[in-house]
Parts: sequence; C-alpha cells; structure tokens
Amino acid sequence: MESVVDHLAFERNKAQFDVNDMKIVWAGSRQEFELSDRISRLVASDPVFQKDNRTALDRKELFKNTLRKAAHAWKRIIELRLNEQEASKLRSFVDQPAFTELHWGMFVPAIKGQGTDEQQAKWLPLANNMQIIGCYAQTELGHGSNVQGLETTATFDPKTDEFVIHSPTLTSSKWWTGGLGKISTHAIVYARLITDGQDRGVHGFIVQIRSLDDHLPIPGITVGDIGMKFGNAAYNSMDNGLISFDHVRIPRNQMLMRVSQVTREGKFVHSGVPRQLIYGTMVYVRQATVADASTALSRAVCIATRYSAVRRQFGSQKGGPETQVIDYKTQQARLFPLLASAYAFRFVSEWLKWLYTDVSQKLQANDFSTLPEAHACIAGLKSLTTSATASGIEECRKLCGGHGYLCSSGLPELFAVYVPSCTYEGDNTVLLLQVARYLIKTISQLCSGNKPVGTTAYLARVEQLMQYQSDVKRAEDWLKPNVVIEAFEARAARMFVAVAQNLSKFTNPEEGFQEFSVDLVEAAAAHCQLIVVSKFIEKLQQDIPGNGVKHQLEVLCSVYALFLLHNHLGDFLSTGCITQKQGSLANEQLRSLYSQVRPNAIALVDAFNYTDHLLGSVLGRYDGNVYPKLYEEAWKDPLNDSVVPDGFKEHVQPILRQQLHNARL
Amino acid sequence: MESVVDHLAFERNKAQFDVNDMKIVWAGSRQEFELSDRISRLVASDPVFQKDNRTALDRKELFKNTLRKAAHAWKRIIELRLNEQEASKLRSFVDQPAFTELHWGMFVPAIKGQGTDEQQAKWLPLANNMQIIGCYAQTELGHGSNVQGLETTATFDPKTDEFVIHSPTLTSSKWWTGGLGKISTHAIVYARLITDGQDRGVHGFIVQIRSLDDHLPIPGITVGDIGMKFGNAAYNSMDNGLISFDHVRIPRNQMLMRVSQVTREGKFVHSGVPRQLIYGTMVYVRQATVADASTALSRAVCIATRYSAVRRQFGSQKGGPETQVIDYKTQQARLFPLLASAYAFRFVSEWLKWLYTDVSQKLQANDFSTLPEAHACIAGLKSLTTSATASGIEECRKLCGGHGYLCSSGLPELFAVYVPSCTYEGDNTVLLLQVARYLIKTISQLCSGNKPVGTTAYLARVEQLMQYQSDVKRAEDWLKPNVVIEAFEARAARMFVAVAQNLSKFTNPEEGFQEFSVDLVEAAAAHCQLIVVSKFIEKLQQDIPGNGVKHQLEVLCSVYALFLLHNHLGDFLSTGCITQKQGSLANEQLRSLYSQVRPNAIALVDAFNYTDHLLGSVLGRYDGNVYPKLYEEAWKDPLNDSVVPDGFKEHVQPILRQQLHNARL
Repeated sequence: MESVVDHLAFERNKAQFDVNDMKIVWAGSRQEFELSDRISRLVASDPVFQKDNRTALDRKELFKNTLRKAAHAWKRIIELRLNEQEASKLRSFVDQPAFTELHWGMFVPAIKGQGTDEQQAKWLPLANNMQIIGCYAQTELGHGSNVQGLETTATFDPKTDEFVIHSPTLTSSKWWTGGLGKISTHAIVYARLITDGQDRGVHGFIVQIRSLDDHLPIPGITVGDIGMKFGNAAYNSMDNGLISFDHVRIPRNQMLMRVSQVTREGKFVHSGVPRQLIYGTMVYVRQATVADASTALSRAVCIATRYSAVRRQFGSQKGGPETQVIDYKTQQARLFPLLASAYAFRFVSEWLKWLYTDVSQKLQANDFSTLPEAHACIAGLKSLTTSATASGIEECRKLCGGHGYLCSSGLPELFAVYVPSCTYEGDNTVLLLQVARYLIKTISQLCSGNKPVGTTAYLARVEQLMQYQSDVKRAEDWLKPNVVIEAFEARAARMFVAVAQNLSKFTNPEEGFQEFSVDLVEAAAAHCQLIVVSKFIEKLQQDIPGNGVKHQLEVLCSVYALFLLHNHLGDFLSTGCITQKQGSLANEQLRSLYSQVRPNAIALVDAFNYTDHLLGSVLGRYDGNVYPKLYEEAWKDPLNDSVVPDGFKEHVQPILRQQLHNARL
Repeated sequence: MESVVDHLAFERNKAQFDVNDMKIVWAGSRQEFELSDRISRLVASDPVFQKDNRTALDRKELFKNTLRKAAHAWKRIIELRLNEQEASKLRSFVDQPAFTELHWGMFVPAIKGQGTDEQQAKWLPLANNMQIIGCYAQTELGHGSNVQGLETTATFDPKTDEFVIHSPTLTSSKWWTGGLGKISTHAIVYARLITDGQDRGVHGFIVQIRSLDDHLPIPGITVGDIGMKFGNAAYNSMDNGLISFDHVRIPRNQMLMRVSQVTREGKFVHSGVPRQLIYGTMVYVRQATVADASTALSRAVCIATRYSAVRRQFGSQKGGPETQVIDYKTQQARLFPLLASAYAFRFVSEWLKWLYTDVSQKLQANDFSTLPEAHACIAGLKSLTTSATASGIEECRKLCGGHGYLCSSGLPELFAVYVPSCTYEGDNTVLLLQVARYLIKTISQLCSGNKPVGTTAYLARVEQLMQYQSDVKRAEDWLKPNVVIEAFEARAARMFVAVAQNLSKFTNPEEGFQEFSVDLVEAAAAHCQLIVVSKFIEKLQQDIPGNGVKHQLEVLCSVYALFLLHNHLGDFLSTGCITQKQGSLANEQLRSLYSQVRPNAIALVDAFNYTDHLLGSVLGRYDGNVYPKLYEEAWKDPLNDSVVPDGFKEHVQPILRQQLHNARL
C-alpha cells in the first residue's frame, strides 16, 4: 500500500482465506466496498485533510483547522458532484468532528421528520445549500436523559402571532449542542410549549441564533462554547455550545408542526399524523450508532493486531528474535474476542439497517405493531455495542504496551472521541432499563396470549426454556449454532423470569422496579447479547462466497459467543443452563479457537480496508514499519523546536546554579 | 470550606459516623492527617499553583507552566525548610507531573540503592541540592517489559579506564524516560556491560547528558522529547524523552557498583553485597503505586459521589424536585463498590508499607526467606489495584453523565494521567503471570514439606479447602468475616489446583505455562483479591476509635467482598465453593448494604479531606454549587475570547454567502 517494503508480508501469507472477498463481506456489498475504497483514498491523498500533529494544537488553532477542513470538504463535494451518500462518506473519512455533522445529521433530519410540507419547502433548500447552518438544541445544563424535564419555554403570544422562547433558570440553558458554540446560524430548540397558560409538553422550534450579515448573536440570545472536552484534539474540534434566551420572539410558523400545531388563535391541536412517525428519526440515529461502534472498534483492533505482530518481547531462543506478542495466549485472549466483536457488531448493524427500513415502511402504512419491539431492540443494541466498543478501544491501547499511550498510536484520540457515545443518544444504563421494562411487560402478557415478536420471539418458548439443560458433552459441541443459541436463550429467559418473580412480590410495581433495577439491567444485557449472537449466526446461514471466508467467520462467531459465555459464566451456572463441566469445555474450545484465529489475524484486520490516513496510527501502519516512524514522529513535537526549552533559563537554570534565593521565580 | 452556602449540608447531616475520626483513619494517623491537611492547603492557597485552564494550553505553554511550578515548589520547600516527607507531599499536591518526580523518585533512590559508599558520597549531595537533575533511562524503543533484552551497550575500555556507552540499533534508543527530553543533566542508563568481549548482563551507569554550562547535549548524544501523550495536560507536562548514544565515554567509577564491579584491569567481580538487596528499591516503588491507586480512585469517587447527590433526573412527584441520581440503585451498584475499593486499597497499601519495612529489615540482616513471597504479593497488588483504578476512574466519569466528559469535571485528566500505571513498573498481565508462577511453585513444593508463608499461608490448608462447602444459609451470613475469607481462599486454591493439574500433563512445563497462561492469570487475580479482602478484614480486627467509624468500614468491607463475589460468580460456582442459592443470597445482602451506604456516602468521601484545588473538578466541589460554576468555567475557554471565531470569515462565510467557487479555500 503506502510503502515499498511490507514488513507484515509474512503474516499476510499465512492467511487461510481470500482477503479481497472478506473485504466485500465487511463492506456489505461490492458497491459499498468500492464507494468506501474510492472516497477514503480521495481523502487520504488530499493535503488539506492531513492529520499531522493535530493533537499538539491549542484549542483555537485546532478549531480553525477544522473550519478549513469542513470548508474544503464542502468544496470537494460540490466540485466532484458527490451524491448524499458519497458526501457523507467523505465527511466521515475526514475524521475530525465538525459543525457539519450536526447540520447534516440532526438539523436537516429533524426538519424532514417533524416539519410540515410547507416548512420543509421553505427550510430544506436553504439547509441543503448551506445558506444556513443548523444544530439541534435539546439537552440543558440541568437536564439530559429526562427530556420531559426540560425547562426552556416557548409561550405563544396571540397578539403578535409569535412564540416567546425563554430560559427561566440557569439550569435551563441549552448545553452540549454541537455546532452551536461558534458557527450555527439556526437551531432546532426543544422547549415546553405554553398556550393559554397551559403546558403542552416539549416541542421543537426553528430559531435563528446569529445574524446572517455579521454572525453576531440575535438580541436576547447569549451563546458560546462550553469549553474543553476529554482528550487531545478529539471532540475539541467541535464547538459544543451553550445558549440562553431572554424572551426571544419567533414567528408561529417556526414551530415544527407535523404532529402538533398551534393555530393563529392559539389553539393547540393534533394533526392527523401519528406521533409514532417521528420516532423514525430516533430509530435511524440509534441504528447508526451501532454501525459506528463496529467502525471504531475495528479501527482499534486493526492497530492493536498489527502492532502485536510487529512487537516482540521475551522468549528469544539462542539469540534469535524474541516472540511476537501476538503469539502469547494472554494477548490472544484479550485481542481476538475484540476482533470477533468488531465483526459481530458489523453484522448486527447490517441487520439493523434492514430493521429500520422494515419499520419505516410499516410506519408509512400506519402499522405500529412492531415499533415497540424494534425500539427496545435498537436501544439495547446501542447500549451493548457502544459500551463494549469504548472499553474495547482502551483494551486495545493497553495491548500496545507503553507506546499505546503516545498520541502517535492513534488510540488515545480514538478513545476520547468515542466514549461520549455511551452517554449521548440515551445513557447506556437508562437504555437497558427501557429494554428490561419492555421484556418484563412482554413476559407478563404471555398468559393473556400476546405473542412476542422479532427478537423477543424466543420468550414464547419460556416454559420449554425453563426446562432446558445443555447437552454439550465434548468441547466441539460448543461449535454447533443451536447449542449456543439455546444456552443464550435459556439464560436470558431465566434471568427475566427470576426478576419477574421478585417484582411480583411488590404491590407498587415502580418500587419493585427500583429495588431490582440492577438485576433488570443484567437481564437486559443478557437479552442483547443473545441478539448479537443470533444475528451473527443468521448471517452465517446465508451464502457467503470467497475461498475460506465463511469458515473464518464461523470461527469468529464461536469466539464471540464463547467469550461472552466465559465472561458471564456466573449467569449460565446460576440459572442452571449449563454445568460446571460444560463451562470448562467451552473454555477449552475457546483456547483452540484462538489458535485458529492466529494465522488469519492480520488478514482479518486488512479486510477492514482502512487507509493509514484513517487509522492515523504509527503502530497500526499497513507496512508494519513501526519503529523508524515512531522515531520520526517524536521529532515533530513542538517541544523539539528548540534544544533548550522555553522557561529553562528562567525557571530551571537558577536552581542548577544555586541562585534560587536571588532569582525571581 | 471554600464557599458560604453548603448545598450538600443536608447530605452531610445524614451521616451516621464522625467524619473527623474517619479522616484520621483514612490518613493513617493523626500526624499524617495534619501533615496532608497543612501542605494541601498551603498549595491550594498559592496563586502560582492554580490549575485554571491548563487543559487548553498548547504543549509549549503547558511545559513552561510546569517548569514554573516545579521551580516555585523547590523555592517554597527551601523557604519553609520542609523535610523530605513534607517536600514530597508538596510536590504531589501540586498535581502536575514534572521532571522532579523522576529526580526524587528514581534517580536519587537508584544511587542510594545501587551506588557504593563513595558513589553516594559524590553524587547524593549534588542531587539533593539539585545542582544536577537526574532521570532513569531503562526502557528502550524496542524493549519495555523484557529488561534482559535491552540492547544499549557499555563496553569497558581498559586503555582509558572508561566505559563506552553505545546504541547499536534504532530500537536500542532509550524511550519514555521521564524528565529526559528537555531538562535532565544526568541519567542512570541501563546497558549491557561488556568486558573482555563478554556480555555481563544489564547494569546501571551514571551518564551526564547535558552541559551544565549551556544545557546543550554532550557530544555523541542525541536527545529529545518523544511527543504528545494521552489526554489534556495530563502527562504532557512531562518531558518523557528519547536518547541515543554514539560511543559516549564515561569514567569507570560511574558504573553503579554496589553489587557488581569492574576493576581497573577490566575484571568483572561481585562484591559481597547480595544482589537481592537492590530489589528493595523496586519493592518500594511498587508498593507506592498501590497507595497512589487508592489516592487516584478516591479522587474520582469523591467527584462522582458529590455530583450524584447534586444531580437530579426523572422521578419528579407532582412538580417537586426530581430524584437525586445517587438514590437510583443502578447508580449505587456502580458507585459504592468503587467507594469501597478506594478504602480497601488504602488499607492494603498501609499494610504494604509495613511489609516493605519488614522485608527491608530482614534484607539488612541477610534474611532473604520472605523476599519471593513479598515480591509476588506486591507485584499482584500493583496489578490488581492499578487495573481496578484505571477502569474505576472511567466508570466514575460515566456516572457523571455528559458533564463528566468536560475537562472542568477533572475526570478526563485524572484518567489520562492515571492509565499508564497499568503498563509502567511492570505490565499488569506480565505481573499476574509472575504471581501465578510463584503460586504454582508453592503448590508443587507442598508435598516436599515447604511451608507457604505470608499471603500464601492458606495454601498449607489446600486439602481442607478442596473439601470446603460454604455453610451460608441466610443473606446475613455473608457479613461474617470468616465466611467470606474461606470462600475466597477456597476459590483461589481450587483455581490453582485445577490449572496445576492441567500443567502436570505437559512434559515441557514452559509449554504448559504458555497454553494455560489465561487460566493462570485468572487464578492469580483470584489470589490477589483474597489478599485485599483479608487485609481489609484484618484492619477491622484492630481497635478503631470514633463514633460509628468502625461500623461504616465493616459495611464497606462487605460491599467490596460481595461485589467481587458477584462479579466473579462464575469462579465461585464453577469451583463448587458456593451454591447457586448462596450466590443469590450474597446479591441480596449486597442490595441491602447499598442502602446502608447511601446516607453516609457524602461523609465517606469528605473523609478523604481533599481540597477543591486537588480535585480540580467543578462537579466535585465541596459546596455542591455545580451549575453556576460550570457556566462560569465555560466562558473561560479561549474560543470564547471573540464572538466570531478565527477562521470563520475565511472558511465559513463564503459557504453561507454561496461564494464557494470564487473563494480561496
């Protein structure tokens, strides 16, 4: 790829499958592969998009650099006449969070999803041409998870036919809004609608926040950046902002009125459009977070796997080279489950895309029957995949030893930029409680003949699952898909039944929910793991072309499932789904699977087809030429600009010369 | 403390124990408490030591700021005539990693531990006066964990009575050395000693690296900073450096010769001093990392606990205030085990201090009998406590919701500055393998009558432990110290016996070790957990004065043990130490313990006695006045210096005005 000598060629030659075919499987289709391949190379070869040394920039320099890249991206999108999908790929390969993410990812979809036809006709052309730049202001200083607790008000004034947007308290300041701090001209602001003195709940409003002439805030608005966030560069390239409103007036037609409307007279009415329709946007955004999880985790795994093959430590025989760290079982047992997880999350996100399409079509046909199940499923998978990815990236960093702590490894920034996913778009614990609530309800309705659907269908067999006993006798039995699925189904079902029994003792169900919320969260996690394992197995039931490709995926699928089983052995044993002996056989099988992954590891991460530009990691270089490049990178640090550093003469030399008492410090 | 209104007073009033007495217990003694209290206030009140906005500084500004603080610290130490212990406290409360850490923490101790009397007489006065500044250059670009694999050479030249220090390869460049990049004048360099053409293994040498006149590198030396590291500020205030040597000559008397010597004739001889003596330094450094773990974890827990009491979300009844998030069981189940861990690590580190003294005294008396056990114990505890602390800090950050992602929460920097502990001073996985090796050896020698000592003494009862069956019948039974200890002993012993049986099947023991290294690591972790639980229980057998203090600690001790049991339920069940029912009773007891911790939570973190300066966290403020201060902090970001940001006119305005094709981007 980028270099003449391939230091990892000997590893690539070990692969027992066709890596080019695996690239297609990973991408989803040949067309998807070609699109990503083309756009990622386009970005990687453009000097404006280089990522050199951005972690050493101060906040202002970084922000200016980001504006430059965002503008250049827009220029290239226009020049090359890229379509929506291509443009979105290009922005994501630039790999530096910018205000444009919120404009395209939240502002435009909100208008599409919640605006009336007239509102869409007015605002979408402006937004699509970027004649206005928008953001999405929901979270407040004092309110994140609890959207119904938002304090900002939008009071209708029938005299002027306007809404008055107001921040009644300090904690009602909007907070965290990406793109708001310095750049956006408009915002979708969520506020409690007040008409006739009555609180009508939270609705969205299009509010202009800065003048299109001089970019100064509109009178009555206080707006700024909320300050530095976790990590080097990372999200500090984004102007997450705060805003407060002092009786700011907007025309009545700037409330997003697709579902609910306020008439000229100030009457609050519902349109014929069902409220559920607007859930479509949220479902879309959350399913995208699952795809993002597989991307982020696979980047980290790619870096750690390549460097584990380059790095040698201990075990030198008679002065020969030391052992590659990837050959150590302890390294394999930490790294390969993450490799398997990256593939597992990829396939479950592919399935979620299908689910989203399916739900959308049903919504259009006024069929809301599968919405609650889809909602619970997506919430759970968002929680599972983002939590596992955040801790997985940090594990990959540790697997690189000391050098993983250098910014030039790419891993610190990847971690810092990724972790907020565990909190935004629904806190992961809150989401698991929602999943649990849905499953408890599903179970409680079984008696009344309500048939569970989709990912909860297995609960229809709950009585059978309560009787289940795994029939594993040899380690290889754990390779059978049905054996694995049934064990995971029985475990999840029994955990829910156990907690449901505890809940039934409470006269006040909410009290029971509070008391047993930890058990509920654990049961929900078990259910979500079952989904990921099932979807991986379903994927393998499809025809997958390519020499050796399907077998590799079968191995990874077993690694993923048995790793989960090992990590949650307590669940499987305490619910009596498997015996101690069967647990130990699963572990034995896992050990043998790691040996099967080993020769294919490098090719399995090559299949992600990431450019060195995207990885931004000296340790993860395609050519494995790590040490000379680490050495080169070091000298680029600003501290190396001068031999004697700033401050030395002033602060250190007086100490060395024992002039401390005379020196001005 | 720092404010007039105490927003957390209602929480402090709930405490069922005397917080002032707990402060003494946490500090270790009244004297320790008073020392920390006095020095931390001294630092907090000094304007030079303020930490404002350091996360927004670029590398050079941050480094200069660090030099200023280090010089000011030295000045205050001299002016106030602080003793060694006070000086060390002062440096640690400044809370910004600086070159002085390595000078005092590694350079000086290495000379004390490995230098001859003459060497100490020559170098220590210079170092103690800071007329020279030293660092500790061991790790190389290509070699971290495997010290015996270091490549730097020190070849004796009998003609000139000198050693020639040389870096034969790129990977032999010293790398990571703190304080080396820009500041140190001298280094202890570890290199392979070559005399008579023979490799005599790795030894330490005192090498001058920069001129004391102009601070330029000595000829033959290439030295610089290795570049940016993880996080905002964090370790970027430290000049971790690289150095390579091109045949640099030093006098023979600059090899540290306490244990081994090279004579004028070039003969390599051993002094009478046993090699083990120099392990004292390593034991000291590692036991300090355990104390540091309790400090770092308790800081994070203090911030998360206070903010969990301030923050409200959901559950508003009839328009009243929402529920404090600390009242949610899901929050308690994540937070309180970390609070208990902070106390557990504090007490085990206290015990380690005693162990260090004990071992040192025995070493002085040429008694090396307890050294291997102490070595394994300290390695294991370093691994356990640093891993748990690193993930615990990140968990605390997540427990603060979105605002934990802001630098002003203090948690991002605390995490970034802490995580390298998992890698330096022994990679945590490598250390656990060392522990496992020692325990397997201990078990294999039981038959030959070798009595296990110290923390491994329980293995003498291995036969009895193999028969053990927990007799827990009710949830409260899990509060009995013996019940807990025996379950943990039986679990660890059985895990080791199981893996020992697997190992015995191999004719080549090393092969067995490789194959079962993951099981060995898990067994070693179980052993280390037993140590921490035991030492917490031992602490409670002492007389602990103060109203209600001991009872609180008993509750925390049970939380710590039962949390571990719940998290590793698979181990306890698969080894047959406890039944499914007993596991479920432990969980029931844990739930009830969380309710007992709840009213005491704020007072339990107040007992750490941290100043707001040290915490450096708006969320963790003593007075709980979080939101107005978050708002204030936001405006300090450099991006808020101007209303229209740098780069807007150049890059964004042309887009808004649709002048893109004409604009120069």
